[in-house]
Amino acid sequence: MPDARRYLIFAPGSFVTNGKTAQGVMRYASDQVVAIVDPRLVGRNARDVLSHLRRDAPIVASVAEGLAYGPTALLLGTAPMGGQLPLEWRAEILAAIRAGLNVVSGLHDFLAEDPEFSVYARTYGTEIVDVRKAPDAIPIFSGNVYDVAAPILLTVGNECAVGKMTVSLEIAAAARTAGKNAVFVPTGQTGIMIAGWGVAIDRVVADFAAGAAEQLVLQAARSEPDLIIVEGQGAINHPAYAAVTTALLYGCAPDALLLVCNPSLKAIEPYGTPVLSYRDLISMYEAACAAVKPAHVVGVAVNTSGLSEDDAACAVEEARQQTGLPADDVVRHGSASLYASIAENVKKRAPLRRTSLHVPSY
Amino acid sequence: MPDARRYLIFAPGSFVTNGKTAQGVMRYASDQVVAIVDPRLVGRNARDVLSHLRRDAPIVASVAEGLAYGPTALLLGTAPMGGQLPLEWRAEILAAIRAGLNVVSGLHDFLAEDPEFSVYARTYGTEIVDVRKAPDAIPIFSGNVYDVAAPILLTVGNECAVGKMTVSLEIAAAARTAGKNAVFVPTGQTGIMIAGWGVAIDRVVADFAAGAAEQLVLQAARSEPDLIIVEGQGAINHPAYAAVTTALLYGCAPDALLLVCNPSLKAIEPYGTPVLSYRDLISMYEAACAAVKPAHVVGVAVNTSGLSEDDAACAVEEARQQTGLPADDVVRHGSASLYASIAENVKKRAPLRRTSLHVPSY
Repeated sequence: MPDARRYLIFAPGSFVTNGKTAQGVMRYASDQVVAIVDPRLVGRNARDVLSHLRRDAPIVASVAEGLAYGPTALLLGTAPMGGQLPLEWRAEILAAIRAGLNVVSGLHDFLAEDPEFSVYARTYGTEIVDVRKAPDAIPIFSGNVYDVAAPILLTVGNECAVGKMTVSLEIAAAARTAGKNAVFVPTGQTGIMIAGWGVAIDRVVADFAAGAAEQLVLQAARSEPDLIIVEGQGAINHPAYAAVTTALLYGCAPDALLLVCNPSLKAIEPYGTPVLSYRDLISMYEAACAAVKPAHVVGVAVNTSGLSEDDAACAVEEARQQTGLPADDVVRHGSASLYASIAENVKKRAPLRRTSLHVPSY
Repeated sequence: MPDARRYLIFAPGSFVTNGKTAQGVMRYASDQVVAIVDPRLVGRNARDVLSHLRRDAPIVASVAEGLAYGPTALLLGTAPMGGQLPLEWRAEILAAIRAGLNVVSGLHDFLAEDPEFSVYARTYGTEIVDVRKAPDAIPIFSGNVYDVAAPILLTVGNECAVGKMTVSLEIAAAARTAGKNAVFVPTGQTGIMIAGWGVAIDRVVADFAAGAAEQLVLQAARSEPDLIIVEGQGAINHPAYAAVTTALLYGCAPDALLLVCNPSLKAIEPYGTPVLSYRDLISMYEAACAAVKPAHVVGVAVNTSGLSEDDAACAVEEARQQTGLPADDVVRHGSASLYASIAENVKKRAPLRRTSLHVPSY
């Protein structure tokens, strides 16, 4: 991992509403965050608007103002709707490059391939890091992941952006506190920014997506950990992104699944696709695994953000009742308890093999 | 669609064993096939070694020999194991370019991006067409496919290379014979070579794979057809390629599924993953659809290649018994009968919408 960066986070108009990357990096990365650019919140601090953050940083109106805090890199988490960079964003990013800042971007459009940004970066001797860019030579899924010794836990969910990365990080932390060598495997742009390695599986060519997921688990296995925890993506019934979910489900070959749900959601938008019940989610995820390598859901991480303390307790209790599994909100209550309840059930399982079926030999 | 080509098919050592593309093009494309390069079969004709082909062509030892038959393009279907082009292949492809042939390739590695091939093509004024190369600007899945008026039929299977493309083409032909305006939607390299349009979904970035599938269906819908038949890919429990299968299952938003199975297969190799039973296949495919847009399996196309007439009849009968659905081998018996049995059940269905669920309004 390179030296820790001093980030100026660029999140105009989106730090609170769409700041998954900004908030994830502030919460978990070893990099510093010196300031946040969001003109709508100027003059306030990060923790004024998001009390759950563990670190604070001033919010400023522009890159120029942020420079006063001595950043070494500009971090872009979220693209505006439509994907195209607005002209005023361009000017701000160029201002950062001119000031000698590196640019770290999680956007689908690679900034390093933009003629203007790349020329500026070369001129001013700074680096553009597109964390979503996948490595060039990803092999097809090989099945070597079936030989990994450590149990593999994959987070799965009822929607995108319900907290699969957060839960994976929190459970990994709890495992380490309990004396286990647990490795977090990042599979999305924010996880990569936090952990300093990984591959954004959603950006890999579909034929190689399971292979990319497998390679990440194999990489994690090299340190001979006690537990591998893979950040999940999407949802098994997400009309747009279920392919990515499936690639992780088969490519990582998990031994156990941890279900991460926001129970307040009713539909996968903008499609109006109904969010599945706990029961249906468990049955769909387990049925998919049962056809390749069996894995059971061992617990439920309930995302109760936005609920009162009472409503949150109800939501967690409801998850317990409906699934018969350990359940908790690991952000609200810490992850030690949920980790302790599931640890014993995260056990190594074998993939299905033809020889294990009762078919006549031929 | 461009003018019909006169193909020299390049399939050294693989015309029979791994010639899915070569055979598909010979069977269905409007392009001519003037000769096949396969040194192991020199002196024989295509129909000597593959009696099911409808067209014949001489088999020759080299590109140089094939030139005598007046080809306008060299067609590469299959890459050798490992993906790298052997040196002797390079020399043959260069010989074709030097002789003024265009090159049409379905390989994952794009020949047009190879420095040597691209320079030669420019020098000799020929064109390199990488049919697997996806268009640049594919949108995320939008849900617009839900508004398509024509019923959408998707072929799904128990493995790769069991005949999903063939069955899709044959059913489309039967529908046309029955007076319907049926459109075949190609989603893989061979289908694209045959139909002259389409996108290889396995080559699309995972996040956009469902979107690419949707765009193809929307494109097919522009001619206001009576029926849209989409070529499926992979299998729902394929450890490497299920992501592609899932992208088609949700991206195409099928109204009905046609199951294509080779019942002789026992495992998905090289993983040893057991092939699912008819019952499990139907339940997995239908469960996936039930979570987004309901679709039922309306029939089974049984691939009985390699079986005797008696064994084939047994295999088809077994499929009927085990599924309670119409079943047939459309290559062996033609597709009119299976099409007639399923046509009535391919009906427009609506996607699940939140409002259709019994949840309290909020």
